[in-house]
Amino acid sequence: MTGSSAPQHETPVKTIAFVQYPGLTPLDIVGPLQVFSVLSRHAPGYDTVVVGEQIEPMATDTPLSLVPSHTFETMPDPYALIVPGGTNPTVAAMADEKLLEKLRTTAARSKIVGSVCTGSLLLAAAGLLEGRRANTHWMYRSLLAKFGAIPVNERWVKDGNVVTAAGVSAGIDMALHLVGELAGPDTARKVQLFIEYDPEPPFGPIDWEAADPGQYTPRLQKSLHQALADHPALLKRLTS
Amino acid sequence: MTGSSAPQHETPVKTIAFVQYPGLTPLDIVGPLQVFSVLSRHAPGYDTVVVGEQIEPMATDTPLSLVPSHTFETMPDPYALIVPGGTNPTVAAMADEKLLEKLRTTAARSKIVGSVCTGSLLLAAAGLLEGRRANTHWMYRSLLAKFGAIPVNERWVKDGNVVTAAGVSAGIDMALHLVGELAGPDTARKVQLFIEYDPEPPFGPIDWEAADPGQYTPRLQKSLHQALADHPALLKRLTS
Repeated sequence: MTGSSAPQHETPVKTIAFVQYPGLTPLDIVGPLQVFSVLSRHAPGYDTVVVGEQIEPMATDTPLSLVPSHTFETMPDPYALIVPGGTNPTVAAMADEKLLEKLRTTAARSKIVGSVCTGSLLLAAAGLLEGRRANTHWMYRSLLAKFGAIPVNERWVKDGNVVTAAGVSAGIDMALHLVGELAGPDTARKVQLFIEYDPEPPFGPIDWEAADPGQYTPRLQKSLHQALADHPALLKRLTS
Repeated sequence: MTGSSAPQHETPVKTIAFVQYPGLTPLDIVGPLQVFSVLSRHAPGYDTVVVGEQIEPMATDTPLSLVPSHTFETMPDPYALIVPGGTNPTVAAMADEKLLEKLRTTAARSKIVGSVCTGSLLLAAAGLLEGRRANTHWMYRSLLAKFGAIPVNERWVKDGNVVTAAGVSAGIDMALHLVGELAGPDTARKVQLFIEYDPEPPFGPIDWEAADPGQYTPRLQKSLHQALADHPALLKRLTS
């Protein structure tokens, strides 16, 4: 764009910032990131960044490593901040006070704060979900109440400016919902078209009764004990 | 496992290998990679790797860079090879003879060859889809016929040992289908439970009639001309 044709007061770009930290579940971050990246190609005024403590490759719970685009110090002003989740490394990150403080200060600068899967446990540990309705991965849902949040079993839950999704793949649905709120349903449908999100789960939707989530309580306990072995106070808070 | 308790003839691990190259659409690779990574945690005998020409960060069509775990030279013997897609960089990669040759030789060693989105255009350019029913991202579907493939509008298409998915998010459905074939429906349902794949697209399924895919033909032509400006022979083959 040439200087002469630029409007005098451009609408500021809305930056959707995704947090990256070691060991996360990549589908948690890539699902909604892809949605908002397609939005930024189809609608003016949106941008995406991935923010980490350092710009270097970090492991995930798959063989793929990811590299963020910015640090918390170099990122542009965020419009929305979205925190992905994971398994044990995310539980361990609940004790990472340095990361939690960065989430607090960045969330305070954001109009929307969101999470996917156990990313909401990081928001909760940062004190950002007190008194709010929220969701997380089904296996970890009961933990939200330990931080004063109100666990809700919905695909995504909006309470004020905080929106929290269910596990892993739910971040795609939440992101499309947010695109609809920000840019309108027609634009959201166009984004959905370009990521060809026309789901056909080959075994149908989840049969929650047959899945019997309650059977996984010992697995949750094991995860907490493994991840928080070095943080007995937090472990006690989550298991008592 | 101690030496004394190890069976004398262990079942070889089935390695699911995902190809990474510069500029791809990360959801194309991360969707099915997450599915198979969860499988490898819940069922013995499966492993995942991400294979690139070099183990170094590569850009994607989002601000995130990805780092593969192996090169084609260091990867273990693949059971399945899955090629993700993307936009212009994937179209440009159709002219990358070095990559195509690696796809050919690796596919020849694999029991299953798969693709997500325009990844099937790379398989097609490598000569691997001749006479086969196949799919790709809806916008690029007509191009498959230029390489002797038979374009099919299904969420995923299996023809012999080759399985090709529709665009981007379809890789999740295809991967769950493959898990069902390899490890059985109960295991596939458990993987689906752990990635909480219980889709609720906020605006419903894609309304293909309203979406009017035909209106995007000029956009496809523009993509081809941009991506293949330096490859006039391939450009002519795809546009004539």
